[in-house]
Amino acid sequence: MTSPRYDVLGIGNAIVDVIARTEEDFLLKQGMNKGTMALIDEPRAAAIYEAMGPAVETSGGSGANTIVGLASLGARTAFIGKVKDDPLGRAFAHDIRAAGVAFTTPAASDGPSTARCYVLVTPDGERTMNTYLGAAQNLSPADIDAGTVAASAILYLEGYLWDPKDAKDAFVKAAKIAHEAERKVALSLSDAFCVDRWRAEFLHLMRSRTVDLIFANEAEVRSLYETADFDTAVKALRADVTAAVVTRSEKGCVVISPDGTEAVPAFPVERVVDTTGAGDLFAAGFLSGLARGADGRNCGRLGAMAAAEVIQHLGARPQASLKDLARENGLVG
Amino acid sequence: MTSPRYDVLGIGNAIVDVIARTEEDFLLKQGMNKGTMALIDEPRAAAIYEAMGPAVETSGGSGANTIVGLASLGARTAFIGKVKDDPLGRAFAHDIRAAGVAFTTPAASDGPSTARCYVLVTPDGERTMNTYLGAAQNLSPADIDAGTVAASAILYLEGYLWDPKDAKDAFVKAAKIAHEAERKVALSLSDAFCVDRWRAEFLHLMRSRTVDLIFANEAEVRSLYETADFDTAVKALRADVTAAVVTRSEKGCVVISPDGTEAVPAFPVERVVDTTGAGDLFAAGFLSGLARGADGRNCGRLGAMAAAEVIQHLGARPQASLKDLARENGLVG
Repeated sequence: MTSPRYDVLGIGNAIVDVIARTEEDFLLKQGMNKGTMALIDEPRAAAIYEAMGPAVETSGGSGANTIVGLASLGARTAFIGKVKDDPLGRAFAHDIRAAGVAFTTPAASDGPSTARCYVLVTPDGERTMNTYLGAAQNLSPADIDAGTVAASAILYLEGYLWDPKDAKDAFVKAAKIAHEAERKVALSLSDAFCVDRWRAEFLHLMRSRTVDLIFANEAEVRSLYETADFDTAVKALRADVTAAVVTRSEKGCVVISPDGTEAVPAFPVERVVDTTGAGDLFAAGFLSGLARGADGRNCGRLGAMAAAEVIQHLGARPQASLKDLARENGLVG
Repeated sequence: MTSPRYDVLGIGNAIVDVIARTEEDFLLKQGMNKGTMALIDEPRAAAIYEAMGPAVETSGGSGANTIVGLASLGARTAFIGKVKDDPLGRAFAHDIRAAGVAFTTPAASDGPSTARCYVLVTPDGERTMNTYLGAAQNLSPADIDAGTVAASAILYLEGYLWDPKDAKDAFVKAAKIAHEAERKVALSLSDAFCVDRWRAEFLHLMRSRTVDLIFANEAEVRSLYETADFDTAVKALRADVTAAVVTRSEKGCVVISPDGTEAVPAFPVERVVDTTGAGDLFAAGFLSGLARGADGRNCGRLGAMAAAEVIQHLGARPQASLKDLARENGLVG
């Protein structure tokens, strides 16, 4: 095992977020499921955009947000994801590279446009997402650069990759290369409805040890085991995977490892503005600790800190240096 | 004089802002003049974008920001400005219409792309702007709809309109129609360097009574009269125009009218995040008061309130309902 060039390589859907504030009524009228992610086609995307309020555009994508968060924490990072060579695709590429992330996946020159996620933020700060996958649907095993995967200490995959048609093959190929190079593979369960779509396959990934570490929130882990009881779900999770972290919003998180289960508190937050990216940035903080060999508690605190930053402003990418924040909070030396 | 259909019609450069945080060093390296607006060509725009950090895209344009602020305050508004029919132009049109503003200027189908302003925000919250005017350069007298101008109680024009080649003709045409319909004409001086480029013409607009009300900040009014002394500048301004408001950042503003000069304090601000749009939103608040027949002090307070909202987050468009804010602060009934 050679010394890794990257701390974390992320693979995910490359998406630009189109964010607008909205009232609860709008979600009802549009038949949206509050707090979740729905897949939409292009005509529906146009209809939602037409109906929604003034918006802000910012690069997003769950896995990409995590990787940018890691870069902000000082980690060495790379990302694989598919955009089209159009204005939004160029903005996505600019933003992730400008954050210090190695991003070399070739942009598609034709086919559907760069993926967009219409994010509706209600007054309580909760976000409801509608994703048009566009060019992200064409991520394929050919986009997986074996050298980059083998050179990354941790491979981080988003569960949303199960939605585009060829991305799961890319996922499995990358996980295989990572394990052959004796690297760790982490998976985010992404969304309760995503878990519902792919429950059997996610469980198979865990039980076959294709993944070593699971990131999930309460709703996702309950959906995975089809139970309303959190403790039952956590017990089942312990049996299926070596390590996992379950986030519980303001109740903090639960870190599961072979050594046991530890609860870690959340970070104080003045005002929740927009929860978009909370889970993504939690994973970023946690993985940054892991990459430095920190213990579960410290990893959990770093995750909570990064999540707290991102929910206090609009958009899912950090607006402050997370490295400086971690230092100010005594979480890194 | 018929009853107006709109409280305020704005005419300005239709611009999308590309906003990034940056360190002071970046401005020095790029030879940028902190706190001001510079006009750039397309190759320079590409070079700045390449060098700058991860960005957020949001509709901007000084006059457009003011009009959107007015809409958020409950005023009836319209806007005239030129975009191209490209993704950024469509975003600009969506955002201003979704804010409740009547916007019907036809988008250009060919020629330069929609205008972009690269906004660099330093840690102190100050913004430094670089504008590629693109399609905004093609605003012409043909875009001025006489019916809309005559139906608006106040015509609001930005000084930046003096930069694109035909826009000043559009400006003068609109001002003439407004006065013929017995409406008021307001002008924002926009930027100290803009004043420096067009000093003689701005003074002529004032002295010929082409404009009735001037919005300026300290730097602009000092630039206008080429004096370092604020009181000297204000005295000169009093002689040249019927009414004016001079904003002074945390020192509040000075309202000049035929009745005298009144100082109005600023609004308390927890933390200055990004000053982009401070002047634009001040004008929005002030004009909303004027449209309702409020006195100078109340108009000034509304301006200060709207400016305070916009500088506490990234971007130059309000993120909260200014109408609700005004009500909470006892500034409207």
